[in-house]
This record gives sequence, C-alpha cells and structure tokens, in this order.
Amino acid sequence: MTETATGTQSVTVEVQAPLGVITLSNPRRRNPLSTTTMQAITAGLRGFDADPAVRVVVIRALGPAFSAGHDLGELVDRTLDDERAVFETCTELMRTVHEIRQPVIAEVAGMAFAAGCQLVATCDLAVAGRSATFSTPGVRIGLFCSTPMVALSRAVGRKRAMHMLLTGDPIDAETAFDWGLLSGVVDDDELESTVRELARKIAGSSARTVSIGKQAFYTQIELDEASAYAEMSETMAANAMTCDAQEGISAFLAKREPVWTDS
Amino acid sequence: MTETATGTQSVTVEVQAPLGVITLSNPRRRNPLSTTTMQAITAGLRGFDADPAVRVVVIRALGPAFSAGHDLGELVDRTLDDERAVFETCTELMRTVHEIRQPVIAEVAGMAFAAGCQLVATCDLAVAGRSATFSTPGVRIGLFCSTPMVALSRAVGRKRAMHMLLTGDPIDAETAFDWGLLSGVVDDDELESTVRELARKIAGSSARTVSIGKQAFYTQIELDEASAYAEMSETMAANAMTCDAQEGISAFLAKREPVWTDS
Amino acid sequence: MTETATGTQSVTVEVQAPLGVITLSNPRRRNPLSTTTMQAITAGLRGFDADPAVRVVVIRALGPAFSAGHDLGELVDRTLDDERAVFETCTELMRTVHEIRQPVIAEVAGMAFAAGCQLVATCDLAVAGRSATFSTPGVRIGLFCSTPMVALSRAVGRKRAMHMLLTGDPIDAETAFDWGLLSGVVDDDELESTVRELARKIAGSSARTVSIGKQAFYTQIELDEASAYAEMSETMAANAMTCDAQEGISAFLAKREPVWTDS
Repeated sequence: MTETATGTQSVTVEVQAPLGVITLSNPRRRNPLSTTTMQAITAGLRGFDADPAVRVVVIRALGPAFSAGHDLGELVDRTLDDERAVFETCTELMRTVHEIRQPVIAEVAGMAFAAGCQLVATCDLAVAGRSATFSTPGVRIGLFCSTPMVALSRAVGRKRAMHMLLTGDPIDAETAFDWGLLSGVVDDDELESTVRELARKIAGSSARTVSIGKQAFYTQIELDEASAYAEMSETMAANAMTCDAQEGISAFLAKREPVWTDS
Repeated sequence: MTETATGTQSVTVEVQAPLGVITLSNPRRRNPLSTTTMQAITAGLRGFDADPAVRVVVIRALGPAFSAGHDLGELVDRTLDDERAVFETCTELMRTVHEIRQPVIAEVAGMAFAAGCQLVATCDLAVAGRSATFSTPGVRIGLFCSTPMVALSRAVGRKRAMHMLLTGDPIDAETAFDWGLLSGVVDDDELESTVRELARKIAGSSARTVSIGKQAFYTQIELDEASAYAEMSETMAANAMTCDAQEGISAFLAKREPVWTDS
Repeated sequence: MTETATGTQSVTVEVQAPLGVITLSNPRRRNPLSTTTMQAITAGLRGFDADPAVRVVVIRALGPAFSAGHDLGELVDRTLDDERAVFETCTELMRTVHEIRQPVIAEVAGMAFAAGCQLVATCDLAVAGRSATFSTPGVRIGLFCSTPMVALSRAVGRKRAMHMLLTGDPIDAETAFDWGLLSGVVDDDELESTVRELARKIAGSSARTVSIGKQAFYTQIELDEASAYAEMSETMAANAMTCDAQEGISAFLAKREPVWTDS
C-alpha cells in the first residue's frame, strides 16, 4: 500500500506492515527539508502513531544524498516570523520523532548535512552506509547550525560537536559511529537489508513493551538520577503487570515462544 | 574474616582489609538479583560504609556469569505493589552503591544482563574480562529494561543505549569499554589480579580525600555547570584544609611519601 | 604586536590578528596556574573579547609541559578564605573561556595535569601533540581534583572520569582524543601548524555567526531538550535575519564567495 502524504511529491509515506517507511523523494535537489517536506514527514509519523499495523518506522531517501538540510531559498528575504516558522516546523518534526510510539530508524546513504544531520541525530536508531557523511556546515554560510546542535551535542558530546559546528567539516560514517551519532555502520550495499533486519527484530517484540520503553527513555534522560529512578521504577512495575510482560516472562521460564496480545 | 550477610547463601560479604568484597554466590542460577540478594548486597555495602578498615569495595561473582538480572520468578503473578517492591529494592541498591564512602569496583566475568548490566553501569569503576558480555534483553520478554536504562544511558549515551534496549543484543567487553560502560578490560585470567591492583592503588590514597571526591562526583554531575563549579569550589577549598591534603601537598613539595591520618 | 598582561612574566598575551594568543610562559616550573597567572589569562581573554580584530583565541605554553596545574605553594598553610579565593579565581577563568565571543582552542604539548587538564577540557576545542598526557592526580596528594572533574566528567563521561580521578593515572593523547577530551591529535611537529590552520579556518567565517553559535552552544547544553529547542529556534531565526546570514545564503545559492560585514 502506498499513500502520498499532504499532496507533496517530496515525501512518500508507505505502510509495509510491520514497517512504516518514509522516503525523501527529491533526489535532484538532495532532499531538502523544506517546510512542506518537514510537515509531510511529521504528518506521516503521526499517521503511523495511530496505525496499529506499524511497529517500526524507517526514514530513508532516494538518490545519493540523505538530505542536504533546510531549503535555503526559504531563508532569504523573509521576515523574522517567517524564519521562526521554519525552525518551529523543524523542531516539531524532531519532537514528533521522539513522541510517536514506534522506534524510528534513520537509514542513511550519502550526505546528511545540517538539518539532515539533525534528523539522523534525533532518530532513535541510525544506520548508515560506509560512504555516508555528516556535517553541520551552517557556519560557512553565516547561519550557525544552532537547532541541529541540540541533537548533535547530545549524541556526540561537547568537543566533537563544537569541532563539527565551528569548522563545518564533514565526518565519515565510521567516525560518526565511533562518536555515537550512529547505532550502526555497514557496507553501502548491505544498508537496506541491515535496516530491514533490524526493524523486523524490533517488530518481533511486544509493541506495547517497545512503546513503553521508548517513551520512558526520553522521560528519564531529562531527569536527575534520583527522579529518573523513581519514574522508571513505577514504569517498570506497571510494565510488569501488562499481559505481554506476564506472557513473556512465563514463556521464557517455560522455554517456549511468547505470543503477544497487547497493542 | 568472613561473614555471611542476612542469612542468605546467595551473597558473601567479606572484609579483606583494605578491601570489602561482595561475592554473588549462586552460580548455578547465574546469580539472579532476587529481592533477598539485593537486600543482602545493600546491607553489605552499608556495613562497609561504617567500617573504617574498608577503603575500596569489590563486587564480584562465582561461576561463569556475573549476573543474569532479576529473579524472574518474583515478577509473575504478583500485585502491582509486589512489582513496585522489587524495583524499589533494586533502586535502593543502586543508590547505595553511589552513597557509600568507598569507591565500588565491579569485577565482571561472564554475562552481565538486565539488572546485572545495570549494576555494572552503576559501580564507580568496572573492569571486565575479555569474554564478558553485556545486554538489556528485557524487551524480548515483554518487560523493557527501564530501570537499567537509567544507568546505561548515562554511561554509554543515547544511540548505543537505544540499540541495546530495543534489540536486546549483547555487546562484548571490548565494545563495552569503547562505549564507556567499563573503565577497563583485560584478559580473563588477569581479571582478579587487575582489580586487586586497582583497588590497592586507590586504597593507598587518603580515605577521606577519596570519600570527599566520590561524594562530590555524584553531586556535581547532576548540576548545571555554574552550580557545579560553585559547589566544587567550596568542596575543594574545604578538602584543602584537611590534614591529609596539607600533609599530601607538603610531602609532594618536599619529595617525600605522605602519611595519611584522616579517616 | 605584543603586550604583557597584568605585569606578570608568567603569561604572554598577544594579538596576531585574526588570532589572539595566550602563552603560558613559566616553563621552568611547568607553567603552574598560580592565582596571578589565572588572573592574567582571564584578563587576556576579556581583552580579546573586546577586540574586534581577534576572531579566534589560542592558549598554548612554552616548554615541554602545557601546565602541571595549580601552584601548590598557594594551597599550604592558608585560611579557608585563602583556599576559596584560589578555586574561585580558577572557576572565573573557566567561565571566561566559555563567555567570550571567540572560540578558544587549547594547543597542548606535554603534560596537562589537574587544573591544566581542566583548562583543556574547558576550551571549546583542544588539539594535542601525540606525546601529550592528561591526568587529574590530586587524589595522590590528598586534594581530590573536584573542580577539574566538573569539566572532565562533562567531556569524557562517568566511568572514564572516575578512573582518572580515583587513580590519578595519566592517559595519552590518543586516548584523550578517543574519549572526547580532545577535538584533535596530531604529530608533535605538526601541532602548531595544525592549530593555526584550524584557527584560520574558523576566522574565515562570519565573526558574528561564530559568536552567536558559541554562546548558543553553552546555553542549550544546560537545558532540557524541549527548552533547548525553544531557545535555539529563536536564536537561529534571529541569526538568519543578520546581514552575514543573508549574504552567506545568497552567496551560496549564487555559487560565489560571501563577504562578511557584521562584527
């Protein structure tokens, strides 16, 4: 089943159960994250959130680039409110990646620059082909990558983020993996199959458990440790009372396969 | 001197001055962290905290596994309050590791899974043999490792924690060291001697200074940077006024060995 | 142009436009960070902050050591208020490194110990020669490196910071780079040229954009993610309205070199 979201040709949103797949589809322009494109991705993610058939989301792109970042044409000769609208739309996209029930995997082939790098840093998981590159080059055109650095600095740490932000120099996929920006790196020709296998592995777990865990992750990461433990103790106790946890533990103890029923 | 804590056979608590050694002693069941076991470890740690002869604590395990995590039998067919009690007991253990005066070193041979991985992530230092493995596999049995992720995500960062939590896949000891979950990795047959040497090196420093520093670490790590510096300036000024600091600095300037007297 | 700050011979402050260069100049004593020296560095940084000719700052040192840390003679036989004054002066230096408009690069040859290691961890960027070493050895002289650990633990993470703090053992430059304490490591004989090239690359960007970005970095890193995005959306929108951003984006779209005019 294929449905095109929001009338734009720049994004394709497909349910390939148990996967939801969002494909950036403007390779000629290196998949710019225009306002329309960002809204289409956000709408696609919200649609998946409401669809019980979708267990894992993959964000990928057509062509040799993942995304070159914002559509720069939207940032010249505008009012301050116009500029604000662009970055608020971008922030809404990043927040939605974290908010939906399903894990979101970035499948990165080619360049992921500026807001494209931010999207990779924001996804729950990110796997890249070995020839992919990552940078935050805004400093070179007078527009510091200040919103990308929120996600980037939380992924790779201070000195490395600062180096990328102040120089605009790209890093390769091995370095991005070594620094924690990626959760995996593979040969280019194994990228798609690796991401599908990863997605299917996660889709094999209880959807409710995965959803509880993803939401809990972003809750606890913002808290001091004592508050995080207080919240997570309660979360884990409630999780333990679900049908799927009771089934999963019982199946494990009985050395049989579990059957998930929660949604 | 050997004393068994709290009447359980699952944990041995020994003072081998200057070390306090806690040994998980249920290798047949892969050292599950049952409520009784966790309470025994916590009691052992509190006993060490009150014992001036103990300068460094080592947590180790008998058999081929460090710990497989919670005792799953305690998590099926229980009330919500029963479940809460398990995770609160676990959180109490983790908090106690951070609260006692002495540094706590995890000596990890074999698997450290779920709450076992959490305990490794929580210890001040952790050294593993090269064949050790680490995972948070709760997602596979319907019970997301939400309390382990508090310690795990603070040790290895977001993408790596998410990968471990969502897949349940184990990582090896070299990877755990590379990601910051361990402070050291050595050949299996050198594990015990390496940990003993590390413990003795730390025990050779002023107990008071080490205690001030450990407590300060967990205070400052939770604060914004300006508040952290305000607290640590005061901590370090007060530390400088102690007998051991005055002795240590004077000895260093005079190129002689210091003699510690603070406790 | 060379000017010596605050009458001390221990620090040289020079404007070599577009660089501001601070040189620790007491190699015989391994460049101790005495109160006078720290005040001179802080004064030099504040002078650069007010000087439009300075676009990037480099902190370097004469001789085989970068800095051995505090002047220990200032820490014996003092009142509590005397001790406080030392650590408050140190904290003021570290805060100033973050507060000035220009990026600050540490150019590290040789040992960077205790407060010297802290200064490296605090600089926006840090490049070291391969033979450099880093440690927080205060624990060995009874004075835990509690203020250095604020910067160190935020750069290298918990287990690695704890290992350095509790043992006092040095790490080499490759390890420091691997752990995120450094943004670069090069052969010793390429250190100065590498840092100059890095500084000139950054100085080629819009000074206003770099200043906006640096300030934004330290604002957002202290905030929860939602607050960070709210602040950075506003920052980036305002940045986009500057002359340099409009010029930079227009030049990029027209495939020509930008001409910066903001200061």
